[in-house]
Amino acid sequence: MIKTGVTNGITDVSGLRVGAAHDADVRTGVTVVLPDTRAIAAVDVRGGGTGSRELELLSADGTVDAVDALVLSGGSAFGLAAADGVAGWLAENGRGFPVGDMRVPLVPTAILFDLLNGGDKAGFSGSADDALPYRALARQAVLEAGDTIGNGNVGAGYGAVTTGHDGRKLKGGQGTASFVIDGGITIGALAAVNAVGSVVANEAGQFWAGPIEQADEFGGRGGPAQIEVLDHPLNKYGDLAESANTTLVVVATDAALDQRQARRVAMMAQAGLARSIRPVFSPMDGDVVFALSTGIHAVDDVRHVAQIGMLAADCVTRAVARGIYHAQALDDVWESYGQAYPIHDGR
Amino acid sequence: MIKTGVTNGITDVSGLRVGAAHDADVRTGVTVVLPDTRAIAAVDVRGGGTGSRELELLSADGTVDAVDALVLSGGSAFGLAAADGVAGWLAENGRGFPVGDMRVPLVPTAILFDLLNGGDKAGFSGSADDALPYRALARQAVLEAGDTIGNGNVGAGYGAVTTGHDGRKLKGGQGTASFVIDGGITIGALAAVNAVGSVVANEAGQFWAGPIEQADEFGGRGGPAQIEVLDHPLNKYGDLAESANTTLVVVATDAALDQRQARRVAMMAQAGLARSIRPVFSPMDGDVVFALSTGIHAVDDVRHVAQIGMLAADCVTRAVARGIYHAQALDDVWESYGQAYPIHDGR
Repeated sequence: MIKTGVTNGITDVSGLRVGAAHDADVRTGVTVVLPDTRAIAAVDVRGGGTGSRELELLSADGTVDAVDALVLSGGSAFGLAAADGVAGWLAENGRGFPVGDMRVPLVPTAILFDLLNGGDKAGFSGSADDALPYRALARQAVLEAGDTIGNGNVGAGYGAVTTGHDGRKLKGGQGTASFVIDGGITIGALAAVNAVGSVVANEAGQFWAGPIEQADEFGGRGGPAQIEVLDHPLNKYGDLAESANTTLVVVATDAALDQRQARRVAMMAQAGLARSIRPVFSPMDGDVVFALSTGIHAVDDVRHVAQIGMLAADCVTRAVARGIYHAQALDDVWESYGQAYPIHDGR
Repeated sequence: MIKTGVTNGITDVSGLRVGAAHDADVRTGVTVVLPDTRAIAAVDVRGGGTGSRELELLSADGTVDAVDALVLSGGSAFGLAAADGVAGWLAENGRGFPVGDMRVPLVPTAILFDLLNGGDKAGFSGSADDALPYRALARQAVLEAGDTIGNGNVGAGYGAVTTGHDGRKLKGGQGTASFVIDGGITIGALAAVNAVGSVVANEAGQFWAGPIEQADEFGGRGGPAQIEVLDHPLNKYGDLAESANTTLVVVATDAALDQRQARRVAMMAQAGLARSIRPVFSPMDGDVVFALSTGIHAVDDVRHVAQIGMLAADCVTRAVARGIYHAQALDDVWESYGQAYPIHDGR
C-alpha cells in the first residue's frame, strides 16, 4: 500500500529539515535541505544550461558520498553564493567533512534564473557583492528550517516563472509531495519550477501530472485525454534570454541507499520531470535532480531500489504541479495558474 | 504546423533506410538503421543494465562524430554479434571510417534481453557461436533495408516482452512514428520495447502515451485521467532475472545537427520514454537512445534544437505505444495488448 505522507512534503522523510527564505523586493529566494547528520547524496543533471557548485564532488568517481546540506537558489550564477551562508552556519556548529580537526562543510548547490521576473535587480549590476541577498537568505533559511514546507512562492521558487501549454507566461513556484510505502520507507520530493516548457497540457488547464495526482492535491482536473497544441514557442522572455530556465529538484528518502543507489534514484526521478513538463531537459533548461538518503530503513535488493525510484519520480511529478498550482502572481505579467487557466462553467 | 509523416515511421527521415529480420523459432530479431552515408550520431544511456558495443566511441570527449549504421538486437550480450554482420556488409561495400586505404565500419549497437521469452534457446548454451543467428539476421536486415518499417513483432522487438499496469505479462514489440515540421524538418523514432515497467496506465488499457496519440495510431483510448494502481511488482519473469529488461531507441532527423546537438536531442528524447513507460530508467532496464542526423536541413539556433528534441520525445512516446499496440502474442504466456486489455462494452 502506497499513500501520501502526513504533510505531503519532503519533510515527511525522517532525518531532515527544510528551510526557505525570500526577498520580496528582489523577487528571489533560497531553499535549504538540511539533514540532521551528513547524508548520502547523489546528483543527476539533464539540463543543458546548469548553474551549480560542488556537483563534481558527487560524480561517480568522486571520493565523497555524503553532504551536509543541499541548496536550491534563485539568482542565476549569483545565487551560488547561497552556499556560503549555509557553510558558515555549518562551520559555526562544527559540522562538515572532517579534515584533521577542521570541518569542511559540503553544500552542493544549484540555481535557477530569476533575473527577468520584474523584481528590483539593481544589486546585480553593482560592484558590492554584499548587495546581493543570497548569503543572508541562505542563513535565514537554515535558521528557520523545520518539519514542514509550503507550496507556491516559496524559497528558490519564490521568483520562478514558467509557461503554459501554448507558451503563455505563468508564475512558477516550488512544490513538494511525498509517498509512504506500507508505513515503512518514506519518499519525498521538492521541486522549484522555472522551466521553459509547460506543466499544463491544454486549454482546460489539465496538468501533465494529472494521472498521478492524489486527492485533488493540485486542483483535481485529471490527466489530459489528448493535447491540442503540439508546438511551443520556447521563448519565455521573448528573445531576451535563451538559456534562462530550469527545474531544480531534491528527492529524499529514509531508505538506506548507498551513493550508487541514490544516483539511480535521482536518474529515475528525472522521469518525474518528463511526466510533468513538456518539453524538458532542453538546452535552454538546467534541470538537476539531487537524491538524499537519511539511511534509516534497510533496502533489500535492486527491485526495492527500483520501487523507490519509481515513487520518487511520482513525487517529483506531483511536486512540480503543486508548486505551480499554489504559486501566486507577483504582477500582471506572470499570471498564476488559476488566472491563466480559470475554471469555466460547463466544463 | 506539425503533422505525422507519410509513413508515420523513422523512414520518413530522408537519407536513411531501416531493415529488420527475425528468427521465429528462437524468437529474436535484429533491426538496422542504415544512413545512406556516414551520419552524425550521439547516444544517451539511462538504464542501469545496458548491453552495448561502440557506445564509448560516441562519448562527449570521443574523436568520432559519425557512424555507418546503428543496430538494435535481441539476444542479450550474445546479440552484440549482430554488429559483425553489418560491419561485414559495410566493408564489402567499401564503407567505414577511413584509415589510410582501409575502411573501418563504425556500428554502435545495443541489445535487449529476450532469452526467457519461450523461444528455442538451445544455441545459447552450445560451444559453437555460429549456432547463434545474430550475424546472419543482421546481414539479412541490411540487405532488406528499405523505406518503410512495420510495427509490432518486428526486428529487435520480435521477441520482446513487457508488463501491464499491474505487472501482468504483455508481449513487447518494436514501434515507429514520425513528425514533420511545416514541410521542412522531419523527425522519426524507432523503439524496441522490452521494459520491466508498463506502457499501460490502467485496467481500461489506456496508454501512458495517450495524450500524444495522433489519429488513433495506437487504438484511440486516450490518456489516463487518473491511475488506479500505484505499485508495480517489477518482476516480469518472477524472480528469475532481475536485470533483463530494456527499451532501445533510435531517433533520427534530417536536420543538420552537430554531435553536441544530436546528444541533446537524444537526452530530450529520453523524456519520451518517461512519458510512455512507468517506471523507466530502472536499475533493471538498459534504456538507450541513439540520435542520428542525416544533415539535410539547416538548424538555426538552440531553440530550434529544443523544438527538434521536444518532437523527438513525442515520436518516442508514440513509437513505444505503437510497438505494443501492434505486437502479436507468440504463445499464451505473453499476451498481446488486445488480449490483455480487451475493449469492454459500455466502457
